[in-house]
Amino acid sequence: MCDELGLMRRALELAALGPAVDPNPRVGAVISDPAGRVVGEGFHRGAGHPHAELEALAVAGRRARGGTAVVTLEPCDHTGRTSPCSLALLDAGVARVVYAQNDPNPKATGGAVRLRAGGVAVVGGVLTDRARDLNADWTFAMTHGRPRVVWKFAATLDGRSAAADGTSRWITGPAARADVHRLRAQAGAILVGTGTVLADDPALTVRRPDGAPEQRQPLRVVMGRRVPPATARVLDGAATTLHVRERDPAVVLDILAEHEIRRVWLEGGPTVAAAFLNAGLVDEVIAYLAPTLLGSGPPAVGDLGIATLRQAVRLQPLEITTLGPDIRLRASIHHHRPHPRDVTCSPE
Amino acid sequence: MCDELGLMRRALELAALGPAVDPNPRVGAVISDPAGRVVGEGFHRGAGHPHAELEALAVAGRRARGGTAVVTLEPCDHTGRTSPCSLALLDAGVARVVYAQNDPNPKATGGAVRLRAGGVAVVGGVLTDRARDLNADWTFAMTHGRPRVVWKFAATLDGRSAAADGTSRWITGPAARADVHRLRAQAGAILVGTGTVLADDPALTVRRPDGAPEQRQPLRVVMGRRVPPATARVLDGAATTLHVRERDPAVVLDILAEHEIRRVWLEGGPTVAAAFLNAGLVDEVIAYLAPTLLGSGPPAVGDLGIATLRQAVRLQPLEITTLGPDIRLRASIHHHRPHPRDVTCSPE
Repeated sequence: MCDELGLMRRALELAALGPAVDPNPRVGAVISDPAGRVVGEGFHRGAGHPHAELEALAVAGRRARGGTAVVTLEPCDHTGRTSPCSLALLDAGVARVVYAQNDPNPKATGGAVRLRAGGVAVVGGVLTDRARDLNADWTFAMTHGRPRVVWKFAATLDGRSAAADGTSRWITGPAARADVHRLRAQAGAILVGTGTVLADDPALTVRRPDGAPEQRQPLRVVMGRRVPPATARVLDGAATTLHVRERDPAVVLDILAEHEIRRVWLEGGPTVAAAFLNAGLVDEVIAYLAPTLLGSGPPAVGDLGIATLRQAVRLQPLEITTLGPDIRLRASIHHHRPHPRDVTCSPE
Repeated sequence: MCDELGLMRRALELAALGPAVDPNPRVGAVISDPAGRVVGEGFHRGAGHPHAELEALAVAGRRARGGTAVVTLEPCDHTGRTSPCSLALLDAGVARVVYAQNDPNPKATGGAVRLRAGGVAVVGGVLTDRARDLNADWTFAMTHGRPRVVWKFAATLDGRSAAADGTSRWITGPAARADVHRLRAQAGAILVGTGTVLADDPALTVRRPDGAPEQRQPLRVVMGRRVPPATARVLDGAATTLHVRERDPAVVLDILAEHEIRRVWLEGGPTVAAAFLNAGLVDEVIAYLAPTLLGSGPPAVGDLGIATLRQAVRLQPLEITTLGPDIRLRASIHHHRPHPRDVTCSPE
């Protein structure tokens, strides 16, 4: 009992061995016997695999009886691909359960209550922040009922994402483009509008610096009513592609939530970006700014319905990095009201 | 003689005591007697004051005879506000002159030649770079026959310098605005177009963070054919203002060169900025980028006649700084060709 904090640290280490991008959260579990000896460890290897508690219980066997289970996430009370972990812990005769993060999944929560009802001593909230950080996108998605949206754009210093003739390869340098692939790989889906498919014919795959494709590819999602040509690279079979014939960002995110997508990497173009911003559905912005000027050409973002400076969408800078000659700004958006009402002051 | 490098370092220290913004360069001089003892020091206090050599000679008096003069700039051979320093050094009987930077001023050069003709041993090129850095703008102006142009703009992440209704106060935060005043103070002139005067009515003065005006104010220059209203703040008498009824940047810079301006701080707007960029007459860019989005509104820079991405104006980043929530990028422009010719590749 005295070393439960140490066991939780170990459980967090185990959790981190799971896949970073998955419909399911990364979870680790450690079982100790009544004498405090570790008798089982486990982590969740991703959707379709057993939960961490079941892995650890399988190792511990009868030695779990009267012992303690230390888990990074509240044990689930939900029959999904596996049976509820709460029941498995009760069956194993565990006397005490210590967990970090409360389960924010409305379908799965209730494990702590059921365990307590079964006579188990339950302690939650141990190293919660670390556990939550490990599954930031999943936590966001469970809390908000939709994937977290990261909008990426590349632009010149004067805010152009392409030249007057539409050419946009490449606004930024090799280091910035490699960074985009690294960050694409962290998303469940890459989203563009049909306009971008028709204008730029992007592959929307994740490639290594040597050009080879990564093994895991995010879902490619094209939104909009127009139909991409059959020859579009996004339809080349290099990754799964979903065409959502819909313009409403909220509807698109509902569909992606059903596909168990936890992070959407939004690559534009300007119309789709403006639609998401106007709907208040951009959570993070990653701007790649090239030290160049164009003076004309399509803007990074379309009309936001903003009339005056006071209504500007304000971002909260998180990180500024240089990538070769380019600048990358990571920022979050808070409290964006799409159509703020003006407070009119009467003169005198 | 063995410590001439040390004397030059001292002369550079003395030079730095002069005014940083002035029609004239900052120059320091040290005179040593034949035994190597320092017998005179001087620096140039700015246009209208004696040159550094004359200051130092006045202190040294007869002790300069047979001695060495160590000066950060080649002694002038030009009768301007003062008589030529070359003659003064000859009259004083100095046996040896060591200097750092060759005089790039076509009107004043020739001092080394005249001194050698008079039998003086002359050595140039000692710590030249340090001397040149001390007078970077002046050196540029003498070499190019025009002031150095630093173009400043403030924009949102999507390249807007104002909202749709023209409001632009304030795109950036207080730290960035204080920085603008600090950098304005380093310029000989602040230049805007009549459009900016009519749209924004800026004061174009240099103010301290507490709002009080700095003692030295750069020349305020308004270019363009339109006439600012008599009530314009730029005509308020807080600083000298010059209205140049001219649209051609080269002509405006000629006039400013005649006014002995060495650095121009160009504040736009987009049309004037584009005119300078198209003329290849921007030497440095200082971009203040706010972490905000507008989606519409006047751009930071107007049409540059660029059709395709390959023709983009490429900047060389020098420095990236954060100022509160804003980013400042300092960059130089190299080899901007205003209307680059396309190289057309024949298919196959």
